[in-house]
Amino acid sequence: MEKVYSYQDLYDFTYKIFQHIGCSDEHAATATKALIAADVRGIDSHGVARLSGYVRLWEAGRINSNPNIHVTYETPSTAVIDGDAGLGLVIAPHAMQVAISKAEKVGTGWVSVRNSNHFGIAGYHAMMALEHDMIGMAMTNASALVAPTFSIERMLGTNPIAVAIPANNQPAFVADFATTTAANGKLEILQRKNTDTPIGWVQDKDGNSSVNANELKQGGALLPLGSDREHGSHKGYALGSIVDIFSAVLSGASYGPWAPPFPAYVAMPENQPGKGLGHFFGAMRVDAFRPADEFKQHMDNWIERFRRAKPAAGYDKVLIPGDPEREMESIRMNVAH
Amino acid sequence: MEKVYSYQDLYDFTYKIFQHIGCSDEHAATATKALIAADVRGIDSHGVARLSGYVRLWEAGRINSNPNIHVTYETPSTAVIDGDAGLGLVIAPHAMQVAISKAEKVGTGWVSVRNSNHFGIAGYHAMMALEHDMIGMAMTNASALVAPTFSIERMLGTNPIAVAIPANNQPAFVADFATTTAANGKLEILQRKNTDTPIGWVQDKDGNSSVNANELKQGGALLPLGSDREHGSHKGYALGSIVDIFSAVLSGASYGPWAPPFPAYVAMPENQPGKGLGHFFGAMRVDAFRPADEFKQHMDNWIERFRRAKPAAGYDKVLIPGDPEREMESIRMNVAH
Repeated sequence: MEKVYSYQDLYDFTYKIFQHIGCSDEHAATATKALIAADVRGIDSHGVARLSGYVRLWEAGRINSNPNIHVTYETPSTAVIDGDAGLGLVIAPHAMQVAISKAEKVGTGWVSVRNSNHFGIAGYHAMMALEHDMIGMAMTNASALVAPTFSIERMLGTNPIAVAIPANNQPAFVADFATTTAANGKLEILQRKNTDTPIGWVQDKDGNSSVNANELKQGGALLPLGSDREHGSHKGYALGSIVDIFSAVLSGASYGPWAPPFPAYVAMPENQPGKGLGHFFGAMRVDAFRPADEFKQHMDNWIERFRRAKPAAGYDKVLIPGDPEREMESIRMNVAH
Repeated sequence: MEKVYSYQDLYDFTYKIFQHIGCSDEHAATATKALIAADVRGIDSHGVARLSGYVRLWEAGRINSNPNIHVTYETPSTAVIDGDAGLGLVIAPHAMQVAISKAEKVGTGWVSVRNSNHFGIAGYHAMMALEHDMIGMAMTNASALVAPTFSIERMLGTNPIAVAIPANNQPAFVADFATTTAANGKLEILQRKNTDTPIGWVQDKDGNSSVNANELKQGGALLPLGSDREHGSHKGYALGSIVDIFSAVLSGASYGPWAPPFPAYVAMPENQPGKGLGHFFGAMRVDAFRPADEFKQHMDNWIERFRRAKPAAGYDKVLIPGDPEREMESIRMNVAH
């Protein structure tokens, strides 16, 4: 029988683990909220399921649980932050707050981060901007699992992009997606079920199309959004590359095939050109463009119009980015115990 | 027999047409350079092939050839520009220059534009940033041809995104792509050849998969990058939506299905919520993050490493975004006459 854990149970459990590896109370709380936001929003691959992975990275000496997170360079609208090898779950909210503070002063703020680790779900960080009537953006590079168009070598991570845009009466627009055809978490689910993938998600080690969910363990690769050249995989490859460059080349993190792996048992790539993983965050005050109320009313109009778009046969309705995760959050936070 | 026109021939011809419709010498020169940059870079659908379309819009009173392009609101890092219904080919370089000037002062500059028209190829505008050692970004909304995931209604344009990133010895990284599986220009080429499209480019008016290149004339739609839900079309739909919102909701242009059509014979949508088409431009000084030389050397390393990525059987090499257009430019600018 499945056991259902309450938010508080999950919070307390996770918080204690982070304390146990040496996080301060404040950092443990920040990391816990960021991590379990994934479970709340239905992105189960990125929540407590990964907690043991973070612990193993700490055991391997790759995560510093008491980091000195600091700005190494800044201008009025930009900053570079060195995460001191801390948890991305702690560094990312810190960096997003710096972006928000800069946006308050000069309209927008942009922060590139080096020397970090996995930060959980990108959408959680981007959404921090919403309560300030700002558009939030978050992206990160990750260890290489994706082959560029025409290649059989894994050069890029699944490199997600999140963009959160506030509305008025409508819930916010929240896009949060890997720049691959399918996120690695989806592949892991199929592996556990022992099922094939659809065509276009992975290729084998020689670059042939494959439906084997275990292909990555045999030298295969995930495919960029678009799957193949004829269906625009060069666009997904470009998007993943932009995320890599903004996150890691701008900040001084390790990019491309040198990005550090998440599993602690995988050796670090040799001759890394930078420090740790990289992230990139942005915050734009909507009233740096037009009055916030006016903008948010037009966002309501945008969202309502798209909700009314005529559905294809067999579908109830057109979704707005963020709808599935918000619906899951509503269900999961209302489970009785 | 095909006749080859020199750059100068094409320039003089186009310049005279723009003068003829009332552009000042300066505006005619700006528009000509922007328009024929498409032909030079091999994006033939967006160059002189569209010149008559611009003239027809002017004849229909939808393009003001003597616009008062002006900033309506600004902060240190942002601006909104009203294009006064001018040529996008003139407004876009103006707006990109404003973004660059802001980046010089505060690190980054972000400009949202309303009351504009088609601006040619996005990559041309993004590339203006390169000579300033800045990363350039350009995007635009466009008239609705694309159905969101699960829908049969055309709600978004092909809404391209361009990102240009400077390197040192290597040529710049220049991504420039429609947020659909295939750009409309590619569909037009197949129409002229009377050939089918690959599966996954278009759907018919009822939402069924189709390979008819003329499907859009019969109520069908282009598909977002990803083609269908199983292959990530919700990601392409989200990307196209972000472009629409940044370009048109932030600025006060007409968004979604209300974006003005390019063909002058197509009636304007009713009850438009804003003015004209919208664009969005960004410029980020790389030395607002780390010293420019250091960044550009790492970009060389990034590009060289990706060029060395192992190619799949049947392919010579892995391409860097911008390679095909630059190679075409080199060929076309070296044709003897």
